[in-house]
Amino acid sequence: MPAIGEMFSRKLYSEDIGDRLYEFASAIYPICRSITGNGVRETLRHVKKIVDIDIHEVPSGTTAFDWKVPREWNVRDAYIKDPTGRKVVDFKVHNLHLLNYSIPVSTKLPLSELKKHIYTMPDQPTLIPYRTSYYKDNWGFCMAHNELQKLADGMYEVFVDSDHNDNGSLSYGEYFHQGETDDEFLFSSHVCHPSLANDNCSGIGVNAFLASALSKVRTRYSYRFIFAPGTIGSITWLSRNQDRAQRIKHGLIVSCVGDPGGPTYKRSQKGTALIDRAVEHVYTSSESNPNIIDFSPYGYDERQYCSPAFDLSVGLILRSKFGEFPEYHTSADNLDFIKPEYLGRSFKALLDIIDIVENDFKTVSLAPNCEPNLGKRGLYGAIGGDKTAYDANLPVFWVLNQSDGTRSLLDIAVRAKIPFERIQAAAKMLSENDLLKVV
Amino acid sequence: MPAIGEMFSRKLYSEDIGDRLYEFASAIYPICRSITGNGVRETLRHVKKIVDIDIHEVPSGTTAFDWKVPREWNVRDAYIKDPTGRKVVDFKVHNLHLLNYSIPVSTKLPLSELKKHIYTMPDQPTLIPYRTSYYKDNWGFCMAHNELQKLADGMYEVFVDSDHNDNGSLSYGEYFHQGETDDEFLFSSHVCHPSLANDNCSGIGVNAFLASALSKVRTRYSYRFIFAPGTIGSITWLSRNQDRAQRIKHGLIVSCVGDPGGPTYKRSQKGTALIDRAVEHVYTSSESNPNIIDFSPYGYDERQYCSPAFDLSVGLILRSKFGEFPEYHTSADNLDFIKPEYLGRSFKALLDIIDIVENDFKTVSLAPNCEPNLGKRGLYGAIGGDKTAYDANLPVFWVLNQSDGTRSLLDIAVRAKIPFERIQAAAKMLSENDLLKVV
Amino acid sequence: MPAIGEMFSRKLYSEDIGDRLYEFASAIYPICRSITGNGVRETLRHVKKIVDIDIHEVPSGTTAFDWKVPREWNVRDAYIKDPTGRKVVDFKVHNLHLLNYSIPVSTKLPLSELKKHIYTMPDQPTLIPYRTSYYKDNWGFCMAHNELQKLADGMYEVFVDSDHNDNGSLSYGEYFHQGETDDEFLFSSHVCHPSLANDNCSGIGVNAFLASALSKVRTRYSYRFIFAPGTIGSITWLSRNQDRAQRIKHGLIVSCVGDPGGPTYKRSQKGTALIDRAVEHVYTSSESNPNIIDFSPYGYDERQYCSPAFDLSVGLILRSKFGEFPEYHTSADNLDFIKPEYLGRSFKALLDIIDIVENDFKTVSLAPNCEPNLGKRGLYGAIGGDKTAYDANLPVFWVLNQSDGTRSLLDIAVRAKIPFERIQAAAKMLSENDLLKVV
Repeated sequence: MPAIGEMFSRKLYSEDIGDRLYEFASAIYPICRSITGNGVRETLRHVKKIVDIDIHEVPSGTTAFDWKVPREWNVRDAYIKDPTGRKVVDFKVHNLHLLNYSIPVSTKLPLSELKKHIYTMPDQPTLIPYRTSYYKDNWGFCMAHNELQKLADGMYEVFVDSDHNDNGSLSYGEYFHQGETDDEFLFSSHVCHPSLANDNCSGIGVNAFLASALSKVRTRYSYRFIFAPGTIGSITWLSRNQDRAQRIKHGLIVSCVGDPGGPTYKRSQKGTALIDRAVEHVYTSSESNPNIIDFSPYGYDERQYCSPAFDLSVGLILRSKFGEFPEYHTSADNLDFIKPEYLGRSFKALLDIIDIVENDFKTVSLAPNCEPNLGKRGLYGAIGGDKTAYDANLPVFWVLNQSDGTRSLLDIAVRAKIPFERIQAAAKMLSENDLLKVV
Repeated sequence: MPAIGEMFSRKLYSEDIGDRLYEFASAIYPICRSITGNGVRETLRHVKKIVDIDIHEVPSGTTAFDWKVPREWNVRDAYIKDPTGRKVVDFKVHNLHLLNYSIPVSTKLPLSELKKHIYTMPDQPTLIPYRTSYYKDNWGFCMAHNELQKLADGMYEVFVDSDHNDNGSLSYGEYFHQGETDDEFLFSSHVCHPSLANDNCSGIGVNAFLASALSKVRTRYSYRFIFAPGTIGSITWLSRNQDRAQRIKHGLIVSCVGDPGGPTYKRSQKGTALIDRAVEHVYTSSESNPNIIDFSPYGYDERQYCSPAFDLSVGLILRSKFGEFPEYHTSADNLDFIKPEYLGRSFKALLDIIDIVENDFKTVSLAPNCEPNLGKRGLYGAIGGDKTAYDANLPVFWVLNQSDGTRSLLDIAVRAKIPFERIQAAAKMLSENDLLKVV
Repeated sequence: MPAIGEMFSRKLYSEDIGDRLYEFASAIYPICRSITGNGVRETLRHVKKIVDIDIHEVPSGTTAFDWKVPREWNVRDAYIKDPTGRKVVDFKVHNLHLLNYSIPVSTKLPLSELKKHIYTMPDQPTLIPYRTSYYKDNWGFCMAHNELQKLADGMYEVFVDSDHNDNGSLSYGEYFHQGETDDEFLFSSHVCHPSLANDNCSGIGVNAFLASALSKVRTRYSYRFIFAPGTIGSITWLSRNQDRAQRIKHGLIVSCVGDPGGPTYKRSQKGTALIDRAVEHVYTSSESNPNIIDFSPYGYDERQYCSPAFDLSVGLILRSKFGEFPEYHTSADNLDFIKPEYLGRSFKALLDIIDIVENDFKTVSLAPNCEPNLGKRGLYGAIGGDKTAYDANLPVFWVLNQSDGTRSLLDIAVRAKIPFERIQAAAKMLSENDLLKVV
């Protein structure tokens, strides 16, 4: 019979985790990632230093449901030179300057023609936008709108030294921690964005360190961590693991977890799964103004896990909501935007959520006729009548009253509006005093 | 298998419909209607010019459930002459002046006695009230309170030239449009109110023109339009069509649809029928502050359709709510109170509602494993990373994600908070690309 | 078949009930009650003057589920004398001065040692707190913090003349009124608090007078009234009446019902039982700002009735919420705090609740096809068109429309937002006119 155990949130949390997460994010921030290529591989090697992931290579052209794994893209250099020969846009200065997945090009053309291949944001004129062209052959550059305005007419030299290899592969990392049962709790981060710190160096780091922490303890659930490019990565994983996918009972996509905004939780398609209720409880117990939003098919890889054939209980956890913070998909999503404090809080929140999922037992009172006499067992304050005494014992009374075998500890915590950890502690104490058992 | 088709709201709507509805209302406004009699017949002849209704005559005395069809009432003249012989109240000037269904009278009596038969509204002293006495023999006049105050003492002559014919009949009009199925969508308007423009010349006109428009197209549902006196008319229809009534799957009573207030929707007794959700969706998608109210047994003919033995999904659609606008049941409910613009908007709203009911299919994705690759089919914007690109594709992704065979297109539109027409268009496009089918 | 009957709220209510309740509370206020002992017995004798309760004595040491009936406690005198021999704290002046259930003591000790046995409230420095020590042997005194501050150093004499008798008993009172069925409606008040007027002289009085009133009439339900010490009293009763307890279909704990605050209702654990909906309807129909709160396991004897093995539909009715009004468990909960007016309103509310429970029949219309013709039966106002006429008939139309055999009169009242008494009167009238019957 399962027993109410220890909570990981204290055991696996250390005060310096925020700094370590920031350091990791800083290390992988400069890498030029895409949905395939060496940037992803280099990123996965950084992850492997934290936790011993398996790195999978799936050949280009492999069928993944309605998709094919694309050609592997690599880039070595890219720039624009003005009529005077000065490099006015240089991929080596910032990898966002290049349209991600750009085909190679080496030509000269007048500014008016060049502009058809340049992406800017007139409403954020000092920032470089992030743009991609995965599924249509194209070349292009991204730059600050103000810089574009400064360019004089004349002939420009453009150069992109990139290639798309039909014999390449798509890379993803995977870590599996076997628990007492084969039921799985999935954590996933996309690894395809280039120099964007919050989206998603932060998520890669948090998941890597979380996997490392869980590798050291015994758990009720098995844990799976996936580090894969967005969309095509999760589609590829799901197409290769259709049977395994059904073992995933709870899951979280982790992204944009380092900034001061939010926190935000986007529910799974089901909306009332345990993972949805657990995250909402953790957020409302610990944060002043959490933003809990319904599922929509706009977002990250939860879109694939929540597609009709799978419909898994997978939500998306963030601080600021993707698409809504001004730094989103711009060069302002840099290492100044994320902070050790918020990386650490995100890590702590995930431990709290895991604690709920691991401990969410249904319980039954072994003294169901009226309240048991806590006083004779030394479990109750001695002086009655005080307005505060009973409050301190409230978690104990809630657990006793609600433990009819139909309700779980999270159900009780939510109804009692008491943090789960206090309800779990009360249940553990009652269990140790033979007043409660797990169903 | 049913297919996702065209939307009627564009096909059957023309910009001049408001003017045509206003013109129709103006034509029938002067007629003195009641629950029986020539006023109803004349009104139905006007309707028949728009759409080829059947006109039914049900003999007085016919049993209709707990009721009997009343005697037929007709009136030719009615007035009050003051002691000087001047007509101070004249039915020929305004038909509201006569207590509707008044028995004949020809007598002289002092003002003090006359006042017992005069109805005014002291709180709206310039307006003539609308009053009836269908089920108790009585005579009386209605007039502005200010005018009553001006009357000098003395002997008054009262004259009502009316009759109640035991061998008369109750008249109602009916139009039926056969659709692909025998399931019916009912529209009904009461035709018993005399010179009251919003209540209900507006509703008679909207229903007549709607019937005319639908007569020209192929529909999934069959459509039935009833033009009958309030209460006794719908009771009579239901008593003669008890078996047919069960074919009515959706229905709307249409009244007070020409004024600038509201719009208002009063739910069917069930409250969550498709018609209720469809109207609420149309209103919240298109109007700034719609008034959606629960069913109550106070109102129009929805009371009969929602009685326990039938309990049909029939709601009431209006602009200002009956009983709550100051012009209600007074001489101020005239042709100045209704406007072509609002008659046209009501007509358009009914087409939008019909579009939902006709197209509310449950759908199943034919590419349920993750998202299908829209890009390779040319169904997706080519440059990724842009904050707005995904938004434009949202209806498509909502339909794909939610189409597990249990949800209808309206369910999806409501959850997505996206107007039905965009969801329907996305479903149609996916269906045409073999990515979706109707269950 | 049960019939819709008379309402007790008029029959059993008299204008002077508030004064009589206040007089009763005044008579029992001075008595020093505890969970056992002569104070309880004296209180029960007062109750027996109002209604002929049975008084039960349960020997100390008797097992009651997880508990044992405690020793009987009696006290004759208790005081503290200062170094000059002056009584600075005297139980005979106010029984709250003594820690309730205090063991005997007779000693001298310095102020610094004495203070370890003295309870005050620094944030309410002029009031004596109410404190108990039932389950740990202890002695102590309670006093105003300001008075404690005035005490000079020196040796103090403390004296408590009390005893705990192993051969005593726990006393409780019980009144049973047999109704047409054996299903029971329970009312219970705790009788263990010493001089606290609202908590619970008020509740004891209201229940005593309510029992007396019901003893004079025929009822559908049987009624049980329990006057017992808090917690151990209800636990004892339940342990001796395990089979009977299942007959309790509805119940209310009555406490703190004499002050001007609230009113408050704390729902049963189930939360949506008939008693919960009945109280909420009465409060929202009659009070401007009722406080309806969810169940929690902090409160009075509803905790025992709602424990998992019983889970009865028992709520708690109060005016100000226990634990939240400043006078709670202090000497300020005295005869100035409670008022005849609010005692009377509480009594009236209980009658209204009983009226709902007694009359909450499911009904079926005998004229379900459309609305019946009320006019021909003289049940409807004769002049139509008036905005107010229909409103007056609304309860009748609501009952007719909703009586499909699945809904009760309370369901109808709640949906119609019409006070139950108007819905019940409409149902009674329809029933008498053969238009309605009870299912």
